[in-house]
Amino acid sequence: MLKRDYQSQNCSIARTLELVGERWTLLIIRDAFRGLHRFDEFQANLGVATNVLASRLERLVDAGIFERVRYQERPDRYEYHLTPSGRELRVALIGLMHWGDKHLAPNGPPVTLVHDACGGTEITSRLVCDECGVLPPNEALHSVPGPGAHRATA
Amino acid sequence: MLKRDYQSQNCSIARTLELVGERWTLLIIRDAFRGLHRFDEFQANLGVATNVLASRLERLVDAGIFERVRYQERPDRYEYHLTPSGRELRVALIGLMHWGDKHLAPNGPPVTLVHDACGGTEITSRLVCDECGVLPPNEALHSVPGPGAHRATA
Repeated sequence: MLKRDYQSQNCSIARTLELVGERWTLLIIRDAFRGLHRFDEFQANLGVATNVLASRLERLVDAGIFERVRYQERPDRYEYHLTPSGRELRVALIGLMHWGDKHLAPNGPPVTLVHDACGGTEITSRLVCDECGVLPPNEALHSVPGPGAHRATA
Repeated sequence: MLKRDYQSQNCSIARTLELVGERWTLLIIRDAFRGLHRFDEFQANLGVATNVLASRLERLVDAGIFERVRYQERPDRYEYHLTPSGRELRVALIGLMHWGDKHLAPNGPPVTLVHDACGGTEITSRLVCDECGVLPPNEALHSVPGPGAHRATA
């Protein structure tokens, strides 16, 4: 886990990684996107130690990325479902996936995404500039301090 | 670092995280996008231990994400620059940033991105379906085994 040091890292990337940057966490979220919801399902698919998995799930619930949904009573058992804010991690996750598909998948992408509504299988993650509408991958961006900057941020 | 277990995690997200998922790595890459290139610059901005920083940089060079560029002779000193494949991590990084801007930045985004070509300041990361041209954030996707699948992948 990253240091919780907002003053020296006043950065939305650092804050997001504090929540999802621990080992296994993004793979648990990936599994939830693919329809796994139960502790045993995550455990079987990831092969992660149960204490690690339990701690990651608890943290994701605390962060509002997962919600617990009871599916059985006596004893109570819960599933883990992505909340709306959790689902918003999809763009970043697919961005990481596409990078791996391009650079680390010599046999081709292990997984293809399909758009349910139209059956399209070429899903890409792109940057869009609302001012001019286009943002080719190599187009230059620069960073300036935003409204939440405490200090000048290069 | 994640286990290097491609057989049980035949997944482009897992492979990408093996390269960039270690603590500090994505923040080093972020700093390079913002114009930092030298060991001392990364160290000063991140406050990370020098041995950790050295190991992360070496790994990023080995992975082809950074290239070393000599800027001084006798003694030789090097800068670290993103390669074209390193620059392709921008979409994923900005996806993480926007998630943090929305959910973890009560005072507003610490950093605003500006599109050099037009001055636009509303840069968003989006998914696009090449078949139908649109992919609203809540539109459902599902995963099917791709050409590089070793086994059925849910």
